Amino acid sequence: MTSSVTFVDIQSAAERLAGQAHVTPVITSRSLDEASAARVYLKCENLQRVGAFKFRGAYNAISRLAPEVRARGVLAYSSGNHAQAVALVGHLLGAPATIVMPATAPAIKRAATEDFGATVVPYDPATQSREGIADALQREHGFTLIPPFDHPHVIAGQGTAALELHGQQPGLDTLLVPCGGGGLICGCAIATRGAAPGCRVIGVEPEVADDATRSFRTGTLHTVHNPPTIADGTRTASLGRLTFPLLLEHVDDMVTVPEEAIVEAVRFLFFRVKLVVEPSGALGVAALLSGAVRPAGRVGVVLSGGNIDGETMTAILQGR
Amino acid sequence: MTSSVTFVDIQSAAERLAGQAHVTPVITSRSLDEASAARVYLKCENLQRVGAFKFRGAYNAISRLAPEVRARGVLAYSSGNHAQAVALVGHLLGAPATIVMPATAPAIKRAATEDFGATVVPYDPATQSREGIADALQREHGFTLIPPFDHPHVIAGQGTAALELHGQQPGLDTLLVPCGGGGLICGCAIATRGAAPGCRVIGVEPEVADDATRSFRTGTLHTVHNPPTIADGTRTASLGRLTFPLLLEHVDDMVTVPEEAIVEAVRFLFFRVKLVVEPSGALGVAALLSGAVRPAGRVGVVLSGGNIDGETMTAILQGR
Repeated sequence: MTSSVTFVDIQSAAERLAGQAHVTPVITSRSLDEASAARVYLKCENLQRVGAFKFRGAYNAISRLAPEVRARGVLAYSSGNHAQAVALVGHLLGAPATIVMPATAPAIKRAATEDFGATVVPYDPATQSREGIADALQREHGFTLIPPFDHPHVIAGQGTAALELHGQQPGLDTLLVPCGGGGLICGCAIATRGAAPGCRVIGVEPEVADDATRSFRTGTLHTVHNPPTIADGTRTASLGRLTFPLLLEHVDDMVTVPEEAIVEAVRFLFFRVKLVVEPSGALGVAALLSGAVRPAGRVGVVLSGGNIDGETMTAILQGR
Repeated sequence: MTSSVTFVDIQSAAERLAGQAHVTPVITSRSLDEASAARVYLKCENLQRVGAFKFRGAYNAISRLAPEVRARGVLAYSSGNHAQAVALVGHLLGAPATIVMPATAPAIKRAATEDFGATVVPYDPATQSREGIADALQREHGFTLIPPFDHPHVIAGQGTAALELHGQQPGLDTLLVPCGGGGLICGCAIATRGAAPGCRVIGVEPEVADDATRSFRTGTLHTVHNPPTIADGTRTASLGRLTFPLLLEHVDDMVTVPEEAIVEAVRFLFFRVKLVVEPSGALGVAALLSGAVRPAGRVGVVLSGGNIDGETMTAILQGR
C-alpha cells in the first residue's frame, strides 16, 4: 500500500515553511536530565508562531491551495491552536479565514484568533453540530476546509518539527510526541523513519483519553467522548481515516500518563526549565517524570504548544 | 587608567565556561517585534543553569581559586540568583558553599540553594548585618567571599553572555541589559566594545531604583535604600567600586521604566513568547514595550533570569 504521506512530502513541506515558520530551539536542562535519568532534548514548538506546531500544518496546507481557491477563503473548526494557526496563515497568504468555534472555548484562544483577522462563528456544542455549520458555510461561500489533523498536507507540515529536530540534534535514540488526533505524531514518525531510522517514536496520551493507545494495541479504531483531561489538545474523539493507519505503520509504541503527571510536568517546565508549556504540550515530559517511559540514551521530546490561559496556569502553580 | 576588566578577560572567561554554562538560545518573536516596532533578539539567560546569568560569574570566579583555597569553601551573601549560582558552582568545583541569606528571602530561592548542597545561614536584615556575619564566617572557617557583582572575575564571567550573543547574532545595533549592581551590564558592555563595536549598550533600571541612572547622568555615585520595586534583582543599594567607573566608561545610556511596564513585560513574555522571565529579567522588554527606548535596527535584549515564585507570577497573570 502506498503511504498517504511520505518522507519526501515532509521534506517538501520544510522547503515551503522555510522563512515562514520559526526554526524553534532545542533546549537542554540538567534539572530535567537528573529528574528523568535521561539526556533530554526539548524541541520547543511552544516557541513556534501562534505558540504551537499547528502553524506548520496550516501553512503547508494553505500554501498548496491554488490562488483563486485561497482567495475565496479557508475554514476551520477548532477551539484551539489549529484555529489560531489557520487564522494567522490565512492572513499571511491572503486567504480570509473563518473559524467555527465552541462558544465555550477559552477566551484567550478566541481573542488570539480574532487578533489575526479571522471571523469567529461561535456555536453551542450541546445543541449544534460544528460539521453542519461548516458545511453550510462551505456551500454558501466556497470556503476550503482545513482539517485539524486528518489531511496529508497537514500531517506533512507537522512532520517538519521532527525533521528539523533531527537536523539540530542528530543521534536521538527515542522521540516522545503528544498524541491527539495523530497529525503531529504521524508526521513526526514518518520524518524520523527518513531522517533518523534508528530512533524509536513513542506517542503519549492522557490515561483518560487513551483512544489512540487502545487503537494502537488492538488494531481497531477506538474512540473517547469528551474525556476529562486537562490536556485539551488531546480531547479529539479518535484518530482519523489517515492518521490511524499511519500510526499503526510508523509509530513504535504508545504510553499513557495520569492527570497528576501532566500537571507536574507543566509545573516542572515552569519552575525548573523556565518555559511556558500547555498541558497537552507537556505530555512527553510527563511520561519521563512519571516513569511511564524509561528510555536509554538520548531522548527528544516535542513540546507541542504553549497556549495556556492565566487561570489554568495559576491553578497549576498553586497546586490546586 | 587601565580598566579593571578587559575584553581579553571575557574571552578567557568564555573558555573557562565552555561545556559548563549552557549556550543559551537567542529567540525571536514576531509578536514582540510588532509590539515594539523593532527587530528583537532575546538572549535567554533565564534558560541558563540556575535560571540566571549569575552562573557565569560565579563559575568564572570560583574556577580561578587555587585548589586549596576552594577546598576551604566559598561564601556569598545574597537572597537571590547569585546565591544559587555560588551554591551550584561550589558543588561542581568541590568548594563547599555557605550562603548568608535574609530570613525573608523567597522560599523558592532558599530551597533551590539548599538543593545544590549549600549551607544557608539566615539572618534578620532588620537587626543583623550580613557583612558582619560573613566576616565572622570568613575568619572562623577561611571561606573565600564571592561578591555578587563588584569583582573583576565575576564581571568578566557575566560579560560572556553578550560575547556569546554577538557570536550567535552578529550585526546588532543596540543591546538592552538590566542593571542592578552593574556586574552584568559592565561585563556585557566591555564584551560589546570588543565583539560588536558599532552596537550601543543601554542599561535599564526600575524608575523607583534608579541609582545607577542618576550616577551615570551626574558622574557621582548615587544610592537607593530598599527600593519598592518588583524587580528584586535590582534592589542593590548602588553600583560598586569597580562597576561604577566601568559603567561610566563603557555604557552608552541608561533608561528607567515604571513598575507597571515591568509587570506588563513579564505578562507579555509569558503569554506571547512562552518564556518564564522574572521581573528583573524583563527590564529590557519593558523598556521596548513602554517606549522608554525606541531603537532602530536590530535590538538584542538580555533576559537575565527566570526565577519567579508562584505567588508573584499568579499575581501578574491575574493582573493584580
